[in-house]
Amino acid sequence: MHAPVELADIAADVMARIRSRGPRVHCITNTVAQNYTANMLLAAGAVPAMTIAPEEVVSFVAGADALLVNLGTFDAERRNAIELALGAVHAARMPWVLDPVFIESSPGRAQYARDLLARGPSAVRLNPAEFAPLFGGDPVRETAARVANACGTVVALTGGIDIVTDGSRHIAIANGHPLMSLVTAMGCAGSALVGAALAVETDAWLAALAALAALGVAGEVAGQIARGPGSFASAVIDAVHNLDGAMLRARIRVS
Amino acid sequence: MHAPVELADIAADVMARIRSRGPRVHCITNTVAQNYTANMLLAAGAVPAMTIAPEEVVSFVAGADALLVNLGTFDAERRNAIELALGAVHAARMPWVLDPVFIESSPGRAQYARDLLARGPSAVRLNPAEFAPLFGGDPVRETAARVANACGTVVALTGGIDIVTDGSRHIAIANGHPLMSLVTAMGCAGSALVGAALAVETDAWLAALAALAALGVAGEVAGQIARGPGSFASAVIDAVHNLDGAMLRARIRVS
Amino acid sequence: MHAPVELADIAADVMARIRSRGPRVHCITNTVAQNYTANMLLAAGAVPAMTIAPEEVVSFVAGADALLVNLGTFDAERRNAIELALGAVHAARMPWVLDPVFIESSPGRAQYARDLLARGPSAVRLNPAEFAPLFGGDPVRETAARVANACGTVVALTGGIDIVTDGSRHIAIANGHPLMSLVTAMGCAGSALVGAALAVETDAWLAALAALAALGVAGEVAGQIARGPGSFASAVIDAVHNLDGAMLRARIRVS
Repeated sequence: MHAPVELADIAADVMARIRSRGPRVHCITNTVAQNYTANMLLAAGAVPAMTIAPEEVVSFVAGADALLVNLGTFDAERRNAIELALGAVHAARMPWVLDPVFIESSPGRAQYARDLLARGPSAVRLNPAEFAPLFGGDPVRETAARVANACGTVVALTGGIDIVTDGSRHIAIANGHPLMSLVTAMGCAGSALVGAALAVETDAWLAALAALAALGVAGEVAGQIARGPGSFASAVIDAVHNLDGAMLRARIRVS
Repeated sequence: MHAPVELADIAADVMARIRSRGPRVHCITNTVAQNYTANMLLAAGAVPAMTIAPEEVVSFVAGADALLVNLGTFDAERRNAIELALGAVHAARMPWVLDPVFIESSPGRAQYARDLLARGPSAVRLNPAEFAPLFGGDPVRETAARVANACGTVVALTGGIDIVTDGSRHIAIANGHPLMSLVTAMGCAGSALVGAALAVETDAWLAALAALAALGVAGEVAGQIARGPGSFASAVIDAVHNLDGAMLRARIRVS
Repeated sequence: MHAPVELADIAADVMARIRSRGPRVHCITNTVAQNYTANMLLAAGAVPAMTIAPEEVVSFVAGADALLVNLGTFDAERRNAIELALGAVHAARMPWVLDPVFIESSPGRAQYARDLLARGPSAVRLNPAEFAPLFGGDPVRETAARVANACGTVVALTGGIDIVTDGSRHIAIANGHPLMSLVTAMGCAGSALVGAALAVETDAWLAALAALAALGVAGEVAGQIARGPGSFASAVIDAVHNLDGAMLRARIRVS
């Protein structure tokens, strides 16, 4: 499975299923990330919804195919929405992805992320700075595999190299572009894309690696025409919309 | 009035009045849509404001020329802001437009939209999926005309073809671009543009068709240069800013 | 100091320090402006954070290097966050910038801005319409200098010409582009850039003029390639990312 061609086929297949099925992804995310996240999902062919109102979040999640829980804002209103949404998710045995944004800057947020980890996310997407506060240990493949195994989740650790592991299977994806770290909500939008993939692929490890490989390739394509992070942000959305198997096969690299 | 040339002249005239008068449009809208909606209004020459704080929403609405009520988030804070804003709108006999976003996904939101419909919006802009939960019946011209007549409002039903009716007058506008449905908040921003048009044109039917025809043409212009939904979103803003009578006359199509 | 070349060197030096040090700027700002503000800071090399949750805002501000207080939404939640954040700022003797958005439209917001002015911001960035409600008097250099002196702050009054004064030193920067006024949150993002500059330059007057000169030049560069306000918004972000001393020296103009 580590050969780039096979990975490209999987990524192409998962992205094609997102495009043809149009899964609904309910996103409980921060207000900074909402717009870019919604546009990322639409570009991939998924359908975003974002409400956190207690009167209706259960109704929205019940009609969704996957849930994103992003901790970019840690307020009582969002915690309440998350609680209600997880209830609906568990009732429907729906996949969900956790994005523990910026937990290194707030002990309370980190504790809350650990509580959510115990609620059984299908996947956790995070960056190296968020790894220790959530899992303990260094953000390296061995630790990621151990905690994935211990927590029964897929760990997707993104950075220069994206590591995706479920404890027994691992992959390191070498795609992406440096400008990705200069666009706010790029990671959040990547987590949303993992959510869309989880909605169409029951193997959470395949879903997570497909979404992140696709986003990494889109970042490279965008980097070729962008003049800076502003035009890059739009170009990534364009590239996700235009991704096809040929582009993925030509570009995907494992490390 | 159904001839494209006459429609183009009306749209050009309404857009020119927005540009010269710079009407203030107060927008109670969801956080996903706020930024794009504000930029759409600025591109057209209008002035957006977006606060929902109870301490000041009345003061802001009193200084505005039109109000947008978008139900993209259905929380108690926004409902309170809407109640206060509608009081100010009715006191000032100011036009307002209702956008019943995603009411098909939440019975509570749909009921609230029906309550607001009874408060006398100048126009309702919505898409086909939102039609039945608000009005009952199928989203077709005949039903739209009937409910517009019954509710005393203009119904602007947008999609591949935009239908605008006040019950006795109808038009079907065939402009637009498929990428419009892949940009979050495009419909919300269209409703805001209807609000800006209502501020400068007392005939709400003319205002709504002018705004939607202008946006449809802007979408087509943008579609010619966009590489995907990311660059398209910016290109629509550019095109609204650059719209003129010649562009409208060359492109507007009725169906 | 008024010679363009010297100003360009200062602006280049401050922007280079932002890029090399990557200061954290905590932004309490409105939801319309959050995304663009975050991308502006990232483009300059700074690190944005935006939470207003009472449980963690103190923790975030304590780890930041500067604070932005933007009054674009005047709700109880944000006022509470501002109170907590200012406590952390004063404890750490951290610089902060006040942006009294739209106070001309709400007497309550204006009163609150005057209360905050008494709390000792390092700089106040505002536009002409916001000047009288905050300071009284006309938005001209003489009044700005007088109130800067009286309040012990730097006043940065932006418009066609940007006036930056600390009461004894004044500069009028003639850079910028008309499209800047047609992009929502451009002023807010400029205030955030002032915050980033304050984090790396203890002379608040130098910090404010460096940030605003850099943004004005970026606006001019963007204006040369933009097709309207949509592409302009992205192009400004690109230009801030690509700014260098040569570009600043070639373009900065004082008036």
